[in-house]
Amino acid sequence: MNIKITGTGSYIPDIVEKNENFQNHEFLNSDGSTINHSNTIIIEKFKAITGIRERRYAKPHLNSSDMAFFAAERAIVDSKINPEELDYIIVAHNYGDVRHDSHQSDTVPSMASRVKHLLGIKNPKCVGYDILFGCPGWVEAVIQASAFIKAGMAKKCLVIGSETLSRILDKHDRDSMIYSDGAGAVVVESTNLEGGILAHETVTYAFDEAHYIYFGETNNQESKSKRRYIKMYGRKIYEFAITNVPAAMKSCLDSSGVDIKNLKKILIHQANEKMDEAIVQRFFKLYNMDMPKGIMPMTITELGNSSVATIPTLFDRILKGELENQSISKGDIIMFASVGAGMNINAIIYQV
Amino acid sequence: MNIKITGTGSYIPDIVEKNENFQNHEFLNSDGSTINHSNTIIIEKFKAITGIRERRYAKPHLNSSDMAFFAAERAIVDSKINPEELDYIIVAHNYGDVRHDSHQSDTVPSMASRVKHLLGIKNPKCVGYDILFGCPGWVEAVIQASAFIKAGMAKKCLVIGSETLSRILDKHDRDSMIYSDGAGAVVVESTNLEGGILAHETVTYAFDEAHYIYFGETNNQESKSKRRYIKMYGRKIYEFAITNVPAAMKSCLDSSGVDIKNLKKILIHQANEKMDEAIVQRFFKLYNMDMPKGIMPMTITELGNSSVATIPTLFDRILKGELENQSISKGDIIMFASVGAGMNINAIIYQV
Repeated sequence: MNIKITGTGSYIPDIVEKNENFQNHEFLNSDGSTINHSNTIIIEKFKAITGIRERRYAKPHLNSSDMAFFAAERAIVDSKINPEELDYIIVAHNYGDVRHDSHQSDTVPSMASRVKHLLGIKNPKCVGYDILFGCPGWVEAVIQASAFIKAGMAKKCLVIGSETLSRILDKHDRDSMIYSDGAGAVVVESTNLEGGILAHETVTYAFDEAHYIYFGETNNQESKSKRRYIKMYGRKIYEFAITNVPAAMKSCLDSSGVDIKNLKKILIHQANEKMDEAIVQRFFKLYNMDMPKGIMPMTITELGNSSVATIPTLFDRILKGELENQSISKGDIIMFASVGAGMNINAIIYQV
Repeated sequence: MNIKITGTGSYIPDIVEKNENFQNHEFLNSDGSTINHSNTIIIEKFKAITGIRERRYAKPHLNSSDMAFFAAERAIVDSKINPEELDYIIVAHNYGDVRHDSHQSDTVPSMASRVKHLLGIKNPKCVGYDILFGCPGWVEAVIQASAFIKAGMAKKCLVIGSETLSRILDKHDRDSMIYSDGAGAVVVESTNLEGGILAHETVTYAFDEAHYIYFGETNNQESKSKRRYIKMYGRKIYEFAITNVPAAMKSCLDSSGVDIKNLKKILIHQANEKMDEAIVQRFFKLYNMDMPKGIMPMTITELGNSSVATIPTLFDRILKGELENQSISKGDIIMFASVGAGMNINAIIYQV
């Protein structure tokens, strides 16, 4: 028995928010002080480090659970399963449904129940729950689906990542340019086909690192609002990630028994292009190798950091031939790898 | 190999909120109209149906993750494990940390990462994540822990339920008197001891029922605030629960192979005493039996509905001899059963 992804789907929101749209923002340091650069320079530097030129935002009438539903529908069609046969619907997210005009996260009922409702699934044995695990939530949800299959509790699981970070960002914070919206979904099945999940690895660093990504007030100290937003200690996260992510990736690859030379692609969570390059270079260095060209497909330039949606969306687009100069074929061995709030790191070695 | 709970802990908040404290509330119908009864009568009727006389609220400086930590510490001490040996920390909740002075749910980092941080656990292999599954979240998290153990991914898991519903309630809504705060925790382990989890059952009804419990505005139509609160269609939930919960409980018991005559206790989620009695009576009726006296220990009179915290708190207090005329002994077979937002229902047959 193997555990394979038999269908993929994604939803890329319609609103294209270009870097130049931030030209009129009043960016401030976290202590409220003015940044000694023009916005033109701030945005140029931002582009140079993160690689982000534009990002996508959901239209006001759509919520995270709607996007999750759109991606899920496509994954179900792609997998050709009958949705009534699903044993689990697992939705990874971090902020629930945040209406465009609200500060509040709406998390009851779960996103999974909302998606199940929208899909019109009647079978009560199809269990829907949400997982909160930072940006690595979708990868972790795939690992959980595989646990249920291994434990004999499931055969078919729908695993979704969906987020609307555009509704959680502080417009006075330069980091606000990183975040975007999106949703990706896969169907994970118990199968007699070859390949599938060969190994997985998860670690949570919370002793010093728990609050590297947190909920904090605006950088604008003149504001009297107590509203809080997604905030991060970028420098600390960078140091943490380039130190710990390559080691976790190596541990995962080694436990799969796969030779690194047979690793075709690394689908890594995308929050910062320079950071991802440093992680993957260091990963190959652990095997005394240079990073092969084209091994790390990037979508951050157009899509920004869409949290839990990034990896399933990337996988879906490559499989559907929508990414220039990138392809994945049957039999290829790839890695999913992610790092984010918690701080959590995970990876999966997967044979297509 | 069996899967057993080897330690329990709970945290009951300090603030006692008695029914008479609601005497000066302006209760309104959901359409904003005045209720044609005095508050004295409203509160008397409320007490007669739900059984709730008082409930507990967390002190302002405490958040849900703090309470989760207190309960977790006690469960770890009780189990005598080294917390560094934990493979998982799973926190069931529904609204994250809601500060006493805030409308916002703080869900990043996960509650599990916060608890791991507070426990001072360094081992990165101890994976922390949160599950959102309505009030049945703690029972479901125990089922997930058992899946990880069965799949060979874990040996020791800390499973916590924690919630501060006092910070999500609309004071113009009579249902606000139902909700309370609390936290309960257990350590679940792979063991050679006899007993443990004998069977489990979970169902999600979302076709018509997904939004029976939801996030809605205040009943006070004069308010201009867009703030939303926990809301429910009580009558629909009652009908749903008395129809579907007994059947799920029966399915669980039957799959365990245990004779109903050997079932010593039913630890059921407590949102409404009359509803719980109707559920358990109907459950026994499915076996042509009357409900045995004392089989359903109740804490709702003093503790109200503390969501995911109710069952682990109840279990902990009975084991520790803190509940009058109630006891559970080694070898006893009991049932955990819950129903809540989603709408989700689950049950576990467990031998102590």
